[in-house]
Amino acid sequence: MPSALKFLIAARRCEIHGLEQLALTCELVSGIGQLIHMLQRERGVSNVYSASRGARFIDQLDSRIADSDAVEAEVRAGFDRLDTESGLLPGGARLFSRIAAVVHGLDALPALRDQVRALELSPEQILEAHTRLIGGLLAVVFEAADSAGDPDVSRALVALFNFMQGKELAGQERATVAAGFALGHFDAARQHRLVHLIDAQQRCFDIFAEFADPASAAAWRDSLPSADAADLERLRRMAVSVQAGSTALPDGSEAWFELATRRIDAMKLLEDRLAVELLHLAERKTLEAQSALEDHAALLAAFASGEAAHAAPVAVFFDTAKPTGEEVSLGDALNAQLGRSILDLVRAQSRRLQDMGDELARARGALAERKIIERAKGVLMKHRDLSEDQAYRMLRQTAMDRGKRLVEVAEAVLGFSDFLGDESGTRRR
Amino acid sequence: MPSALKFLIAARRCEIHGLEQLALTCELVSGIGQLIHMLQRERGVSNVYSASRGARFIDQLDSRIADSDAVEAEVRAGFDRLDTESGLLPGGARLFSRIAAVVHGLDALPALRDQVRALELSPEQILEAHTRLIGGLLAVVFEAADSAGDPDVSRALVALFNFMQGKELAGQERATVAAGFALGHFDAARQHRLVHLIDAQQRCFDIFAEFADPASAAAWRDSLPSADAADLERLRRMAVSVQAGSTALPDGSEAWFELATRRIDAMKLLEDRLAVELLHLAERKTLEAQSALEDHAALLAAFASGEAAHAAPVAVFFDTAKPTGEEVSLGDALNAQLGRSILDLVRAQSRRLQDMGDELARARGALAERKIIERAKGVLMKHRDLSEDQAYRMLRQTAMDRGKRLVEVAEAVLGFSDFLGDESGTRRR
Repeated sequence: MPSALKFLIAARRCEIHGLEQLALTCELVSGIGQLIHMLQRERGVSNVYSASRGARFIDQLDSRIADSDAVEAEVRAGFDRLDTESGLLPGGARLFSRIAAVVHGLDALPALRDQVRALELSPEQILEAHTRLIGGLLAVVFEAADSAGDPDVSRALVALFNFMQGKELAGQERATVAAGFALGHFDAARQHRLVHLIDAQQRCFDIFAEFADPASAAAWRDSLPSADAADLERLRRMAVSVQAGSTALPDGSEAWFELATRRIDAMKLLEDRLAVELLHLAERKTLEAQSALEDHAALLAAFASGEAAHAAPVAVFFDTAKPTGEEVSLGDALNAQLGRSILDLVRAQSRRLQDMGDELARARGALAERKIIERAKGVLMKHRDLSEDQAYRMLRQTAMDRGKRLVEVAEAVLGFSDFLGDESGTRRR
Repeated sequence: MPSALKFLIAARRCEIHGLEQLALTCELVSGIGQLIHMLQRERGVSNVYSASRGARFIDQLDSRIADSDAVEAEVRAGFDRLDTESGLLPGGARLFSRIAAVVHGLDALPALRDQVRALELSPEQILEAHTRLIGGLLAVVFEAADSAGDPDVSRALVALFNFMQGKELAGQERATVAAGFALGHFDAARQHRLVHLIDAQQRCFDIFAEFADPASAAAWRDSLPSADAADLERLRRMAVSVQAGSTALPDGSEAWFELATRRIDAMKLLEDRLAVELLHLAERKTLEAQSALEDHAALLAAFASGEAAHAAPVAVFFDTAKPTGEEVSLGDALNAQLGRSILDLVRAQSRRLQDMGDELARARGALAERKIIERAKGVLMKHRDLSEDQAYRMLRQTAMDRGKRLVEVAEAVLGFSDFLGDESGTRRR
C-alpha cells in the first residue's frame, strides 16, 4: 500500500484515540460539576450555621454533608477508572497532578466537618477551606479544557469551565453576603470582596457566552426571572453600600439566601444541560473520525485491488507532470490519478489540522488569562515569600486599588519579574 | 495507600511515557536532518547541472542521488518504526499527517530525478520541487518541537528547528546564486529572492541563538572563518547589485559554490552536535523522571509500613489544624506529618508543572510566528483561490514592497480576514 496512506490512517487513529479519551474526561467533568454543586450547598449551609453560632441550619448541615458524600464517592470512582497505570493518558501529567491535590483535599474533608460542627471555625475559615477544595476541582476541569485536542470540544469545555467558575463565584457571593446578613453587618473587607466577586462573575459569564453554542447562551440570558434579577441587584446594593458597623441593616438573610440559591439552582440546570451536550458532542466527534477512518480504509482497498498497486505514483507531488497531449500509458494515467487523489487527501488533512489548530488556539486563548494570573501568583509567592492565597489577595487588592483588571495587574507583575532576575536558577540545563 | 500519592505517581508515569516517546521523536529529527542535508546537496548539484544544460556536475549528480537514497531508506525505516497502529503517540495526528505528506513526496522523487536527468526542468522548477520536499521534512521537525511536553527538550528542538531552517535557507541561497552565476546574469526576481533568503536566514539564526545552550550558540558564532565571511559578503553583494541583463558579471560560480558549501558543511557539523546533545538531553530527562518516580514509590512504601497507613490524614490540606499546645495523640501527630508531606509533594509537583508550562509557552512562542504565516497563507489560498506557493509569494512580495517583516504582513492579512466573513462555515457545530 502507498506509505502516505498508511500514515494518514495512523494520524486518524491518533485523533480517534484522543477523542475517546476526551469523552471519558468529559464524563469526569460532568461528575465534578455535580460534586462542586453539592460542596457549594454544604459551604453555604456551614457558613450560616457558623455565623449564627449554631442557631440556624442545624438539620440542613447533616443532609448536605450526606449529599456531598454520595457524589464524592462517584467522582472518586471516576478518578479511579482513569488509566493511572500505563502513563498513556494524553495530558495526563497535569490532569493527574490536579486530581492528586483534589483527592488530598477530599481526604481531609471529614476532619474539617468535625471542626465546623464543633463551631471551631469562623465563617471566613469555612468559606476559604471549601473554596480551596472547589478551586482544586475547577483546576481539574481547566486542565481538561486546556488539553482537549478537538477545537469544538475545547470550545464547549471552555464555555463549561467558565460557567462553572462563574457559578462558583456566585456561590462565594451567596456565602459572603449570607454571612454578612447573619452577622448583622458588612465590613469594608467583605464589601471589597463582594464587589470583586460580582465583577469576576460577569467576566466568566461573558466568556461563557462567547464560547457556548447560541442556544445555551440564549438560555442563560433568559434563566433569571426579571423580578428575581431586580431583587438580586437590590440586595447586592444594600450589602455593598451599607455603612461599616451600621446597625441599620434590615435582616435580608432569608431573602438573600433563597434568591441566591434559586439563581444558583438555575445555573445548575443549565450546567447539567451543557454537560449533556458536551458528552453528545464528544461522542459525535468520535463517530465522525471513525467514519473518516473507514473512508481511508476503502481507498486503501481500491489501491490494493487496482493495476496501480504495484507501481510508484508519478511526480504529481511536484506538479511537474508531462503536459497533456504527450503520449502516456494507461498505467501512467492511472498512477497519476491515484497519486493525485492521495495528494488531495494529504492536503485536505493538512488544511483541516491547520484549521483545527487555529480554532484550538482561539479557544485556549480564553484560558490564557487565567494562566497569566497563576504565573503572576507564582512570581509573588517566590519573590515575596507569600502563600498562594496571600499572593492572590495582593493581586486582587492592587487591581481594586488601581481600578485595573486582575489580568492587567498580573501582566504588570510578570513584566516586572524580569528585573527580579535568577530565572535561570529554575531551569535545569 | 493514600489516593493522592497514587495520582502523583500516575502523573509521573505520564511524564515518563511522554519523555520516552520524545526521545524516539528526537532520533527521528536527527535522521531527518541527515536526509535534508543530502537533498540539499542533490538540489545544489541538480541546479547547476540544469543551468549549464548538462555541461557541469554530470558525475556528481549520480553520487549525490545515491547518497540521498541511502539516508532516505533510513528515515523511512524510522517512520515505519513509529507506532502507527495504536493511536497512542502524543501529538500523533499532526505528526503522522506531516509524515504522510513527506512520504508522498519521497515516492515521487524518482520521477522527478528522471526529469532532471533529461533536462526537462528549469533550475527554478528543480529548486521549487526539492524545496517543497525539504519544507515537508522541516514541517515534521516543527511538529516535533511544537508537541514536545518537556520545556528543556522543547527549547532544544526550537533551537534545532530554527537552525535547520536557517541552513535550508542557506541551501536555497546557494542554489539561487549558483544558478545566477551559471546563467551569467541575475534578474530582479532572483535578486529579490536572494535578499529575502539572507534576511530570513538571519531571523532563524537569531532565534536559534536565543534558545540554544550557550556553548552551541558560541560555536555557531565562531563557525565561519573571518576570511570566508568576508568572501561570502563580497559575492552576495556582487549578486545583489549587478545590473539586470549586464554581461559584466565575473564568473563567481566555482568560488561561490565552494564557499557556500563550506559554510553549509560547517552548519552541518554544528547541527550534528545539536542533534547528539538533544538525544542526551531527552535521555537525561527520562532518567530524572524515573528517579523521581522511585522517590514516590519509596514514600509509598513508608506509608504502607507505618502506623498511619490505616487512618485518614488530618485536615492539613485546609491549614485549620488544632493550634500547637493542644493535646494530640501520637497517631494524630504522625498522620499530620504524613499528610503534610503529601501536601508538600502535591504543591511541589503543581508548582513544577506550572513552571514547566511557562517555559513551554516561551519556547512555543518562537514557533508561533511561523504558525501565523501558515494561517495567513491558508486565508489567501481560500479567499483568493491561490496555491500554497502563490500565497506565500504574495505575502513575501508584499513584505518586500512595503519593507515589512513577513509576519507583520501575515498578521495584517489575518486581521483583514475577519472582514471576509464566513469563518462560521469552517466550524462544524
